[in-house]
Amino acid sequence: MELKQEAQTFEMPHLLTYYECDETSHPSLSMILSMISMVSDEHSMSLGMGTKEIQSTGGTWVVSGYEGHLSAKQPSFGETVILGTKAVSYNRFFAVRDFWITGKEHQIEYARIRSIFVFMNLKTRRMQSIPPALIEPFNAPVAKRIPRLKRPQKLDENASVIKKNYQVRYFDLDANHHVNNARYFDWLLDPLGRDFLRGNQIKRFNLQYLQEVRNGEMVESKVNKLQTNDEKVTYHQIGVGEQIDAIAEIEWY
Amino acid sequence: MELKQEAQTFEMPHLLTYYECDETSHPSLSMILSMISMVSDEHSMSLGMGTKEIQSTGGTWVVSGYEGHLSAKQPSFGETVILGTKAVSYNRFFAVRDFWITGKEHQIEYARIRSIFVFMNLKTRRMQSIPPALIEPFNAPVAKRIPRLKRPQKLDENASVIKKNYQVRYFDLDANHHVNNARYFDWLLDPLGRDFLRGNQIKRFNLQYLQEVRNGEMVESKVNKLQTNDEKVTYHQIGVGEQIDAIAEIEWY
Repeated sequence: MELKQEAQTFEMPHLLTYYECDETSHPSLSMILSMISMVSDEHSMSLGMGTKEIQSTGGTWVVSGYEGHLSAKQPSFGETVILGTKAVSYNRFFAVRDFWITGKEHQIEYARIRSIFVFMNLKTRRMQSIPPALIEPFNAPVAKRIPRLKRPQKLDENASVIKKNYQVRYFDLDANHHVNNARYFDWLLDPLGRDFLRGNQIKRFNLQYLQEVRNGEMVESKVNKLQTNDEKVTYHQIGVGEQIDAIAEIEWY
Repeated sequence: MELKQEAQTFEMPHLLTYYECDETSHPSLSMILSMISMVSDEHSMSLGMGTKEIQSTGGTWVVSGYEGHLSAKQPSFGETVILGTKAVSYNRFFAVRDFWITGKEHQIEYARIRSIFVFMNLKTRRMQSIPPALIEPFNAPVAKRIPRLKRPQKLDENASVIKKNYQVRYFDLDANHHVNNARYFDWLLDPLGRDFLRGNQIKRFNLQYLQEVRNGEMVESKVNKLQTNDEKVTYHQIGVGEQIDAIAEIEWY
């Protein structure tokens, strides 16, 4: 007889700093992703799985995509928020994890994000099955079919496209010796320009990582211009040369 | 009879996040400056001087320079550090402030930084005298002569120079609607390259801000190559066209 398992939920308070916020005084999308990545790490560490324990298996967790919703009201710097996460389900190759950012008293949910993780072999740089020792402690249910994230619609190369190049910089790398995946959002959004970014707020987003951006590369970020006022959705793509590294779809309030 | 004043010291704990650290797993210099800028803001706010109160005077605090020392042992992500600050002295136009970053129990001092602040009129973008209501609550002594920071030595244009261009991006702007001054350090250091930055650690630094970098500008960052192994000092400059925006001198361990 198997006991019903209770999936682990983990929360931590976080003082929202000035430098996690952009000109609007609210956190930028890349900082939101950085923050939820932190709570995921803290969750692992609280269960005895730190970077050392993870890397001793010869692999590392890699995010394959995000799907998220942000409320119209966003927190401001100086505010303490709650960062939360829960392991939703997993199978041999995929692990689904939910994240939330709420007010200090859970009185408001600022963001709700789902992500899918895969496990990458550090030597071959290929996906491998998830080591059971790294996933069982989360007590999430094993699923035959794991929920899929909505795949972002590809940008229309024939429509009007804004393009901008970004040189990958040393400080885009993190302690994992790779370009931090939250940085992709700064490249994805920047071509929209200051007027657009100050005047519009993100409602929903979907991002799919396809290839890893590497140190020293010049990334090209493309975005379709909005066609009508009704359809407040932008389609994004970043890549190097002919290779597409990530695609994203963003709906705006 | 005047009572002897005790200058206000302010400290706060801070959990060092993954994204405040670079590939070395220690905080990058720009993040160190961001963190001390946060403790300075928190100090002001604790005395009733928030952004609103400050900007209602028609001006804003601007850092004119930094001088700092980092210990050979630096904190790692996941560690809780103490961020501290104290108003050292001031006169009509300049305010000197010290910062420190220590271990949680003050058992080690990771960084000690001095900065000089001036007050800028938001309309004219020129320096103005510091509003007494914004400086008196800190209880720092009024000084006839305020300590000067060591001025960085200018880079030698005739020596071997590494140059790199950086496009200012939307997410370099902060809630003050200006390029966050900590970002300058990412531009200053990046031309040194990954091998140098992974293999060398900052011991001392001096930075002087001369002009404001603006949104949309293309910044040129120049650095003198090291000449000998004994002399572990690099000289840096960033500017736009003929205009020099900041100069810095960095000594390495």
